Amino acid sequence: MKAALLSVGTELLLGEITNTNVVYLSRELNTLGIDVMYHYTVGDNPARLAEMIEMAFKDCDLIITTGGLGPTQDDMTKEIACQVMGDEMVLQEDILEEIKRRMLAYKAYMTDNNIKQAEMPSRAVIFYNDAGTAPGFALDRTLADGKKQYIACMPGPPREMKRMFTRSVMPWLEGMAEGVLVYKELRMFGIGESELETALLPLIDGQTDPTIATYAKDSECSVRVASKRANRAEAEAAVEDMIRKVDELVGQFIYSHDDEDLVRVVSRKLMEQKLTIACAESCTGGMFAAALTDIAGISECFDRGIVTYSNEAKIQELGVKPETIETYGAVSEETALEMATGIRRVSGTDIGISVTGIAGPGGGTDEKPVGLVYIGLDYKGEVTCRKIDRRITDRGRNRRYSTLSMLDMLNRALG
Amino acid sequence: MKAALLSVGTELLLGEITNTNVVYLSRELNTLGIDVMYHYTVGDNPARLAEMIEMAFKDCDLIITTGGLGPTQDDMTKEIACQVMGDEMVLQEDILEEIKRRMLAYKAYMTDNNIKQAEMPSRAVIFYNDAGTAPGFALDRTLADGKKQYIACMPGPPREMKRMFTRSVMPWLEGMAEGVLVYKELRMFGIGESELETALLPLIDGQTDPTIATYAKDSECSVRVASKRANRAEAEAAVEDMIRKVDELVGQFIYSHDDEDLVRVVSRKLMEQKLTIACAESCTGGMFAAALTDIAGISECFDRGIVTYSNEAKIQELGVKPETIETYGAVSEETALEMATGIRRVSGTDIGISVTGIAGPGGGTDEKPVGLVYIGLDYKGEVTCRKIDRRITDRGRNRRYSTLSMLDMLNRALG
Repeated sequence: MKAALLSVGTELLLGEITNTNVVYLSRELNTLGIDVMYHYTVGDNPARLAEMIEMAFKDCDLIITTGGLGPTQDDMTKEIACQVMGDEMVLQEDILEEIKRRMLAYKAYMTDNNIKQAEMPSRAVIFYNDAGTAPGFALDRTLADGKKQYIACMPGPPREMKRMFTRSVMPWLEGMAEGVLVYKELRMFGIGESELETALLPLIDGQTDPTIATYAKDSECSVRVASKRANRAEAEAAVEDMIRKVDELVGQFIYSHDDEDLVRVVSRKLMEQKLTIACAESCTGGMFAAALTDIAGISECFDRGIVTYSNEAKIQELGVKPETIETYGAVSEETALEMATGIRRVSGTDIGISVTGIAGPGGGTDEKPVGLVYIGLDYKGEVTCRKIDRRITDRGRNRRYSTLSMLDMLNRALG
Repeated sequence: MKAALLSVGTELLLGEITNTNVVYLSRELNTLGIDVMYHYTVGDNPARLAEMIEMAFKDCDLIITTGGLGPTQDDMTKEIACQVMGDEMVLQEDILEEIKRRMLAYKAYMTDNNIKQAEMPSRAVIFYNDAGTAPGFALDRTLADGKKQYIACMPGPPREMKRMFTRSVMPWLEGMAEGVLVYKELRMFGIGESELETALLPLIDGQTDPTIATYAKDSECSVRVASKRANRAEAEAAVEDMIRKVDELVGQFIYSHDDEDLVRVVSRKLMEQKLTIACAESCTGGMFAAALTDIAGISECFDRGIVTYSNEAKIQELGVKPETIETYGAVSEETALEMATGIRRVSGTDIGISVTGIAGPGGGTDEKPVGLVYIGLDYKGEVTCRKIDRRITDRGRNRRYSTLSMLDMLNRALG
């Protein structure tokens, strides 16, 4: 099946918002085995929208639209889709009731615009919206040569769209296709995308089901393993079997088999194991503490973090010995370890973690280049150090990579 | 002039990357007075790319493409654009020399693919690429009815594209249009987008030149004022005049008249005024320190930051009195102020800034709801406190808003 994604909204053409819907839908459709051929964006203009739908149907069997389903005058995706697909609008009493119920709950008044939202093409498969008021729908038409074409229309706000897609559109797409699709996303750190692709080549090569797709994001990679079989049990077994093979090749880099963030994995382990932690940061300047404290409930585990940017702060706050900094430098294994044991002693936590490095762009030398970073870990008195020397010269990337490395080191220590 | 943006790259159709180029180009073109009618995305497929260019020209006079200019087999935007515009490819010796020079500098070998990069349509206006190896170019064609159509092709990586756009494509576009365009972007904090639009309505209403466009991003807003006049002096005067009017209406919220980030504005002032600073964070968990230390050279000013999540840490690290926490609570004006003076005393800096609040989603009460935040500032012994009570229930938004508020408060104190 060949698909086009059609985004509707003048705000996109004005550059007011970034289109993340097409990223999400492209991935999901590709996983479902549907080829995404085109992305189109058009403003809130009925004639151009109708023209674009017809144009997309020249090459594709399926169009997925997002946006233009709201209650205002501007919103006309529903009416245009209905017209192009040769259907007519009817008032759907049950949708009207649901909208009334919602408006009452929000203490808002019904307007004619809200009633417009309850009108739907008569042949539509309706997708309820449990995150907003605008329902979505799907319609089909049969061409003179017997070929069937489909359009599915969803609201534009990403949160509403994603919920509708996973709960309603995906099952609808699966229902059209034969078989059941199952997929899992593995997340990893410490391996680059090209290195990952090379490692998985024996699995990817000539493989049609399960399919394996790799994605890269900043310093992380992920692998999506998907299988479409006659029934769920078979598809699950095929995915699990492939994941075992992926594990054998690159298992040491995988931190989640369930598409969970590294910081979530680490926080969950800290909370489960009832461990307390404190951190001492230099080059990351608070990013590690900020990442960890983004997780609700982490206050049970996270006691404090100190950003010791100056040497005096390292000495005064963490008890790093002045001689250590003089002899080995602030960016050294020795300083990193004294920072880790220092923050653990000061805060009385189970774990102390530290980082010191040269973030760049300035401050590097031949001996200690930009990108040189040391991470110290004191886990209940057992100390270890990790050296990073990847010659990353971009300050931002360096700091993000160092933060992820701290989480990775911690994750491995937590087992 | 009506324009279409055409993004070329299979990675976009696979959902591997987010298309930020169209956001940037849409804004820039709209500012230039060029209407962006469509965004199109197509994979690395010559036939579909050619078809899409012809289709876009049905409605538009200008197509701007990004992507597909690299040295590999996949990259064919140049060849297809050349073919559609009725031109032929020729080897451009000066580009070849430039590529050779670059390859030598990177100690890389020339391949046939690199030579391909030096071939250009014979009639092309060439845009040099000073951030990468693939040059861009523009071509035109004249239709039978005398109408002129233009295509400008740029590389896909955003950094290369943006540099090429501002340095070469924008002047080329301005050269085609009559008059000179001047614009300025004002950035502000503390006002919502709808409030801003309402405030500026008397200026926006019926205004054709200068134009005024508002944008919102997370908790910040910006206003872009643009004027196109016969000459630069006239356009600049018109923009300055309008900015004075904007200043009169919403000047108290503006922190930059030159599109500078709030954290950059604050860091610049700290460095210029040679002030030292330390921070004590609770609910933001290190985000303020992380934001400030993202700026290269800030180590001159930033001494240390302490994330005091637990009450003990507040007492132990900052000298907050246990009675203060007992009597007023950890989230109170009193605690915020003791944190600010505490961190300033401990670190011996000119400025101490603190934050304590309820980030959510849990932990709120009727008296102290989620979103209640206090910021304390000790500026050379003069203390002030800001209370935020916006009932933001999203943890992430709350933390970002608090961090920006700290920067805003500091910015106002720095004058």
